[in-house]
Amino acid sequence: MSPNAGKAGAPFTIEEYVRWSDVDAAGIVCYGAFVRFVEVAETELFRAAGMPYGKVFDRFDCWLPRVHFSADFHAPAFLDERLRLNAYVKKLGTTSVTLGFDIDNAGGTRVADFEIVLVCIDRKTFTKRSLPDELRSALSAFAG
Amino acid sequence: MSPNAGKAGAPFTIEEYVRWSDVDAAGIVCYGAFVRFVEVAETELFRAAGMPYGKVFDRFDCWLPRVHFSADFHAPAFLDERLRLNAYVKKLGTTSVTLGFDIDNAGGTRVADFEIVLVCIDRKTFTKRSLPDELRSALSAFAG
Amino acid sequence: MSPNAGKAGAPFTIEEYVRWSDVDAAGIVCYGAFVRFVEVAETELFRAAGMPYGKVFDRFDCWLPRVHFSADFHAPAFLDERLRLNAYVKKLGTTSVTLGFDIDNAGGTRVADFEIVLVCIDRKTFTKRSLPDELRSALSAFAG
Amino acid sequence: MSPNAGKAGAPFTIEEYVRWSDVDAAGIVCYGAFVRFVEVAETELFRAAGMPYGKVFDRFDCWLPRVHFSADFHAPAFLDERLRLNAYVKKLGTTSVTLGFDIDNAGGTRVADFEIVLVCIDRKTFTKRSLPDELRSALSAFAG
Repeated sequence: MSPNAGKAGAPFTIEEYVRWSDVDAAGIVCYGAFVRFVEVAETELFRAAGMPYGKVFDRFDCWLPRVHFSADFHAPAFLDERLRLNAYVKKLGTTSVTLGFDIDNAGGTRVADFEIVLVCIDRKTFTKRSLPDELRSALSAFAG
Repeated sequence: MSPNAGKAGAPFTIEEYVRWSDVDAAGIVCYGAFVRFVEVAETELFRAAGMPYGKVFDRFDCWLPRVHFSADFHAPAFLDERLRLNAYVKKLGTTSVTLGFDIDNAGGTRVADFEIVLVCIDRKTFTKRSLPDELRSALSAFAG
Repeated sequence: MSPNAGKAGAPFTIEEYVRWSDVDAAGIVCYGAFVRFVEVAETELFRAAGMPYGKVFDRFDCWLPRVHFSADFHAPAFLDERLRLNAYVKKLGTTSVTLGFDIDNAGGTRVADFEIVLVCIDRKTFTKRSLPDELRSALSAFAG
Repeated sequence: MSPNAGKAGAPFTIEEYVRWSDVDAAGIVCYGAFVRFVEVAETELFRAAGMPYGKVFDRFDCWLPRVHFSADFHAPAFLDERLRLNAYVKKLGTTSVTLGFDIDNAGGTRVADFEIVLVCIDRKTFTKRSLPDELRSALSAFAG
């Protein structure tokens, strides 16, 4: 992984190899492997924003569970390919943040794209609450 | 898991416990665990249709990769809860099949729902082809 | 899965299919899939003992982290095979419990065997403590 | 991950963060997460040796399934910690290679160590065969 620091308007990028356990009996990356790639990009984006999850949860006494996840697959990816993920903030709502992820192979072909919606909830009551201002501000640097 | 044989118009149902590795530090089922539940329901639906994946791939010389996956989460699920998944065929297209999955907890609360689109491709050329008639017929018994 | 209630001297048994995501590009069950099977057997053994993990952790204010894990693989397992896992308590120590798992295929060939050592620790201090008597007694019914 | 090129006598090192999905409800890295870390180190060691798995399997017409896996856990690891894995070749047998992995946290405390034995088998017959000389030579640079 080679995370590149994001700047306003620029997507945050990581690269990661397709590994043996990512590939299924059809010889292509299976669904669960993309989930792994997307999680790496998601957590690195928060870390690059100065907001690693452990800090977010303790500082703001909230959780950020997923309420929506969608994925579209456009081309197969193969063992040992180095994939590039662009991650960005698509929307900052009152209580939620929508993240987008585009995955390309080394040849520049779009392999897949993902959208995740996280919602901010109170750690004790599990009820929705506003995104903390400090978190909103930090994430806004990665608006896509 | 207690798979119940499907019949026309009736959803196919499995039940599965939330296990230790399904639960994250917030004490609730994390995303990857739902992927596990949905895969069990998907493969059991094909098995109940007389079409376990191994047979499908060898008999029809095709693969059925996912081209779309979406999920909405409505309520948290907790350790040791026994979840019920209803699986059904939402749409049988020319080259694709759309599956739906509803997950409820033991109290009948909707926890999450999923939609997966599989497309039929040739095993050698990786190009789209029509769903085999025999497979289409077998799956139609699980139309939702 | 078809868990059979254990009785003294008899192993606890579950059965589970090899699913698509369990199989790698060599067409055989990969390592991570066995981890999934073993976790199902482990959690079902505790449940059959009347000690599901959620109850254990809250009632005795302890965790049971793994301190050792080992596996030997003797024969490959293939897609759609139905594997049988025998789980049993190999040793009840003062602070630890050693579990054994044997995995056979439908033809009775030994596919793999596993050993896991869990140690009882205090939930607050993370220091070792004695296995609660009630847990020890419940697990002794599954001595192998 | 920051793979450092190995040289004779020096372990091959990668670093990786503990991510949200690696942590269980006890707040510590769970077993499956270590499996993920070890797989990254294993595949990067082969890549650094000039022998990425995809190349190995096609060039030598073999697979390298695991026949043994063992792990000992010495200290818990927590969310957002950056773990350091040292990977090395413990033994090069006639048909097998034994790999060792030591995992330390940022403070230098040993968190866990792992041993994996891979055996070389023919891709068609699944029978044991000698490790290819070219592979043996490439791996010997990482002897620990």
